Amino acid sequence: MVVSVQEIGQRAKTAATDVAGLTITTRNDLLRQMSQALLDNQSAIMAANKEDIAAYANTLSQPMIKRLTLDQPTIKAIATSLLAVVALPDPLAGPFDTWQTHVDLKIVKRVVPLGVVAMIYEARPNVTIDAAALTLKSGNAVILRGGKEAIHSNTVLANILRDVLRDNALNPDIIQLITDTSHESVNVLLNMRDYVDVLIPRGSAKFIDFVVANATVPVIETGAGNTHIFVDQSADQKQAIAIIHNAKTQKPAVCNAAEKLLVHVAIAAEFIPKITEKLVRAHVELRGDQASHQLDPRISLASEQDWDTEYNDLIMGIKIVSGTNDAIDWINNHTTHHSETIISKSSENVAQFMNQVDAAVVYQNASSRFTDGFEFGFGAEIGISTQKLHARGPMGLPALTTIKYEVFGQGQIRE
Amino acid sequence: MVVSVQEIGQRAKTAATDVAGLTITTRNDLLRQMSQALLDNQSAIMAANKEDIAAYANTLSQPMIKRLTLDQPTIKAIATSLLAVVALPDPLAGPFDTWQTHVDLKIVKRVVPLGVVAMIYEARPNVTIDAAALTLKSGNAVILRGGKEAIHSNTVLANILRDVLRDNALNPDIIQLITDTSHESVNVLLNMRDYVDVLIPRGSAKFIDFVVANATVPVIETGAGNTHIFVDQSADQKQAIAIIHNAKTQKPAVCNAAEKLLVHVAIAAEFIPKITEKLVRAHVELRGDQASHQLDPRISLASEQDWDTEYNDLIMGIKIVSGTNDAIDWINNHTTHHSETIISKSSENVAQFMNQVDAAVVYQNASSRFTDGFEFGFGAEIGISTQKLHARGPMGLPALTTIKYEVFGQGQIRE
Repeated sequence: MVVSVQEIGQRAKTAATDVAGLTITTRNDLLRQMSQALLDNQSAIMAANKEDIAAYANTLSQPMIKRLTLDQPTIKAIATSLLAVVALPDPLAGPFDTWQTHVDLKIVKRVVPLGVVAMIYEARPNVTIDAAALTLKSGNAVILRGGKEAIHSNTVLANILRDVLRDNALNPDIIQLITDTSHESVNVLLNMRDYVDVLIPRGSAKFIDFVVANATVPVIETGAGNTHIFVDQSADQKQAIAIIHNAKTQKPAVCNAAEKLLVHVAIAAEFIPKITEKLVRAHVELRGDQASHQLDPRISLASEQDWDTEYNDLIMGIKIVSGTNDAIDWINNHTTHHSETIISKSSENVAQFMNQVDAAVVYQNASSRFTDGFEFGFGAEIGISTQKLHARGPMGLPALTTIKYEVFGQGQIRE
Repeated sequence: MVVSVQEIGQRAKTAATDVAGLTITTRNDLLRQMSQALLDNQSAIMAANKEDIAAYANTLSQPMIKRLTLDQPTIKAIATSLLAVVALPDPLAGPFDTWQTHVDLKIVKRVVPLGVVAMIYEARPNVTIDAAALTLKSGNAVILRGGKEAIHSNTVLANILRDVLRDNALNPDIIQLITDTSHESVNVLLNMRDYVDVLIPRGSAKFIDFVVANATVPVIETGAGNTHIFVDQSADQKQAIAIIHNAKTQKPAVCNAAEKLLVHVAIAAEFIPKITEKLVRAHVELRGDQASHQLDPRISLASEQDWDTEYNDLIMGIKIVSGTNDAIDWINNHTTHHSETIISKSSENVAQFMNQVDAAVVYQNASSRFTDGFEFGFGAEIGISTQKLHARGPMGLPALTTIKYEVFGQGQIRE
């Protein structure tokens, strides 16, 4: 029986009360059982995953197939990651801020779950488990809507987790998967204000924009990263080359990879041929402004569109700027507010850059590839927020909570 | 010259950088000067206000006219409120969380202004000053769009504040008023994602719904309050009557006033005639379910629509419920997530109510009229959030800030 998206929303709302009432001992125990259940059901998971891969073998790129694949080591890693979530502190634990008001009301500012969290994501079945684990740990019900390419894998994975809930006499609807992979199911989800407390979309900038334009449920924007590196006049150029190379090539398909390079005009003639040499050897295609193109013909001419494009590929835009002010202005006009970097020895320029660049994370002399919940030490990551409300940058468990004021009186009325 | 809304947005974005760079000494000094400037320009303010009132004398209700009126005591009070904002702590001050990561990156989690805050509000010119003062104190640029009925007052007030900025050789566009009072100007504002970091609408539930459905800029929903009081079997009935009377009648037009009364069936026959007597004497119209109507004929029959209506008037809905579970279910199906109250001596029922009712503020044995930034001790209030993201309940200065991660490296790259 296919359950409608509306029905899934209603069930999630009910389940949210159930999961919010679970102790941290129970939540952690469920996560341990889920970890074991994944290992116990490896063959079923791999069989379903093979179906998915077979259906898309000819249409998906090799990196996409890799992200879709669940083999024994991947399943082991996912099962282990659940135990890491168990080890994290309870995001709902006190002590809570508590005070008495001027009329002697006692106010407790409690941390509580958001309620129903919905996730829309691509063909990455590991996100099904990640998202379910982090929402369960934080006392939320979750509605999962993964990419159609992973539907068989996701169905088996969600059923394994739901069976653990059932085995513990709990409401299985604490974790629900939308198996309707039509666009219509997304549209319904975007507008279920009665049931969904927050929607976290993961995907391309274009998809996130679609969600923002069409959703009436509250959204946390994540992941779009048109990230820049500005090489200042005072930069240690050897360090700059190492950082740019790392940020661009270590994992080009991810959101914290560098996409654009801004070079101070005073060092451009010296620096641009050096970085071009390094990047061309790493098979990076370079697209630049007129000035950088003239300095090195291996840099082709960029189009206007390039400056706002997140390539997620071995391509980089290069532009020469007149200084820190120019770099900041350029970045603030083209940034997706994710991660921005200055390579500089000038503490004054670094301070100005960090103050004025409008991004979740601003770096001095380091690779933007460190924008990550694990690298930041949060022990988990439900996504990287590029918005300013509620959560910004890598989001750990606290991003899945909100607050509630409990007020205790003895008959106080307002004069 | 009328400046277009787009142009106002662009200017605000530039001004946001200017205001973010001001020290707390400067921000406070500006607020002091603005307070004095309001007193110095009382006659101009009152003259403009008279124009507004004359234009709407025949179309606005008496309470609306009262909210619109700026006389000497009101202006004095507004000027004094600016000095109260000066006295509040700087929401951007540290100390900030700071740590070293496993690769020895130093991360500073700084508190920073949101950037550009837009406010849409009704014909209450005091909000023009409140909003400008709180956004300035928190280092934000503000775009104000007040009700058309207050356009002359708002124009004079905004110009007084902008003149203070000019006199200090600062960008006057830190504070801007949209003088175009057409609906079209609101529509443009709702979709200026390039310039507006957050929009705070204040107004009717219907207007907030319109904003949520049509905005692509991030919104903080405020103020809609279909608030309930549940009188449990164990309630101190005398206390309950005092609280209900206060919450319903002390200021019926505001969002934290009570709108609905739920009575435990076991005490209904005794309690309902008593509370009806009290409320009818206070000129409250009562609309109830069949059961309460039968207990007291002064209660008329409510329509389905009543249960979801915020009256903002001397009207109250009454319903008999079978107990705490029934009350919680009813409330969660009809609440606007603002403030909800239980009158009870049962700590068990109170705990269940507080845990399971989905609202920003939950009360035991007190009037919901205390949901207010000043009553909570925040010293300020930019609105009352009824959403779960970013801010919930009364919002003080911290609600106008976000965070930014500053990462300091020495050439770290990701392996």
